Amino acid sequence: MTRFNKKKQSILTIENGQPQRKKDVLAAEEPLEILLRAGQEQRTIAITMRTPGSDYELAAGFLYNEGIIHTKAEVANMTYCVDGNQQEYNSLRIQLEADTLPKLNQLERHFFTNSACGVCGSTMLDDISQRNLPPIPAGSGATPALITSLPDKLRQSQEIFETTGGLHAAALFDLNGNLLAIREDVGRHNALDKLIGWGLLNDQLPFHNKVLMVSGRASYELLQKSFVAGVPVFCAVSAPSTLAVEVAERFGITLIGFLRGNRFNIYTGIERIKTLEHALVN
Amino acid sequence: MTRFNKKKQSILTIENGQPQRKKDVLAAEEPLEILLRAGQEQRTIAITMRTPGSDYELAAGFLYNEGIIHTKAEVANMTYCVDGNQQEYNSLRIQLEADTLPKLNQLERHFFTNSACGVCGSTMLDDISQRNLPPIPAGSGATPALITSLPDKLRQSQEIFETTGGLHAAALFDLNGNLLAIREDVGRHNALDKLIGWGLLNDQLPFHNKVLMVSGRASYELLQKSFVAGVPVFCAVSAPSTLAVEVAERFGITLIGFLRGNRFNIYTGIERIKTLEHALVN
Repeated sequence: MTRFNKKKQSILTIENGQPQRKKDVLAAEEPLEILLRAGQEQRTIAITMRTPGSDYELAAGFLYNEGIIHTKAEVANMTYCVDGNQQEYNSLRIQLEADTLPKLNQLERHFFTNSACGVCGSTMLDDISQRNLPPIPAGSGATPALITSLPDKLRQSQEIFETTGGLHAAALFDLNGNLLAIREDVGRHNALDKLIGWGLLNDQLPFHNKVLMVSGRASYELLQKSFVAGVPVFCAVSAPSTLAVEVAERFGITLIGFLRGNRFNIYTGIERIKTLEHALVN
Repeated sequence: MTRFNKKKQSILTIENGQPQRKKDVLAAEEPLEILLRAGQEQRTIAITMRTPGSDYELAAGFLYNEGIIHTKAEVANMTYCVDGNQQEYNSLRIQLEADTLPKLNQLERHFFTNSACGVCGSTMLDDISQRNLPPIPAGSGATPALITSLPDKLRQSQEIFETTGGLHAAALFDLNGNLLAIREDVGRHNALDKLIGWGLLNDQLPFHNKVLMVSGRASYELLQKSFVAGVPVFCAVSAPSTLAVEVAERFGITLIGFLRGNRFNIYTGIERIKTLEHALVN
């Protein structure tokens, strides 16, 4: 029930076989239950392991990314559940303006399904298509110099990571390389949900004309969420997966991986990176 | 529907602003649907994003870790679902020997619950306790020299990582530092499920007198699975979370983090590491 995002711990460091007592700082990990309420109906829609902090943003981002809400006006209020006299910081209730809960079939399909055999990467891409989200605008104007400036800025802004070494981050930059927002979490998908929830609650969506950077690898899930949020340029410190590249290709996201020092790889959408458009015709 | 665990892709590498066409190899990511069948009853119990390969082990390990099966004898057979004429490699059906499906309430509670507010780290630890799993034996005999020898061995054995840079690994070693098995996946939890599924299907469980090493951080989920598999010594390249340390402490697992070069941190269970027991009384 901690609200802390990190915690001190006494440990033993062993170097060349020699032990030494030290204080270490751990990144907090706690479950968050997200309860959806409309009128008198209530239902738990997710339990996620997360680092406490920015929980409202996490819940809002999750609901937005799953297509359960589309504007912040659909949310009447968000509160931690109260259990007797004690505030319970691991259960968050979102009261919708609507009188009844939305159909959660699509959401359930992400987790459980009783359909015949038929799940595969391309059907998942079809599911995204069916949401009829607006396409991401073609231009961006990001330059290679802008892209290579991001890792240092990300690292410098990762407060909890600096002390714990244990967190993922998702950060949003404008086209001048200014950091707009950064969120951290033990889970990569949570860091991005928090960032997108920040965008929703602060009228910053869609993230057109912005560049997103994540600390780890690029998975299907991160690219799917980025498309929903309208991200034109997605950068990762490490490798993308096959399905991440497929999502980026199909939905027109520029996907950059292995962004380290003066180097990066472009997997899709090179036409958005200024000065490199000519490489297309070579 | 690929069965491949990696895939070639044409990319553009940018170094100091100069583009160059290259071939890159991506780690495959595809959904796997796990269907449980008993008699004529059938139900999808999970859909996970995974790297194809060792799917039977992944499914067996998942069922074992969730407490749905306890021995391999409970599984009648495992087959990929057949969809018309086409083998479907992303849906795996596990036929149980039992005539009816087990109660999946506990499983559902991991994901969805309609209970009053009350999820938190310590209730999750209580849930693990209620499974009445045997305690992990006290001794181990692992030395600091053995521990520091593991990262190189892990890296040398990570076949797919070597070419893609995009995969997590979980590896099991004996007390002489011999690699017994290693499994890779885009998801850390899947890599460990595969390894534990290997143990179940090859009569290697519990993993007493063994040392487990994972490529990334140590989360609640990984420690919980390790306890179920009887792992006495858990090593991670990176940081543990608060809840990972709590699971290790409560269930008697030696938890080692930041294992790199000649250094590592011991968070819990130092008494299992030979030559360091004396540090306990200092």
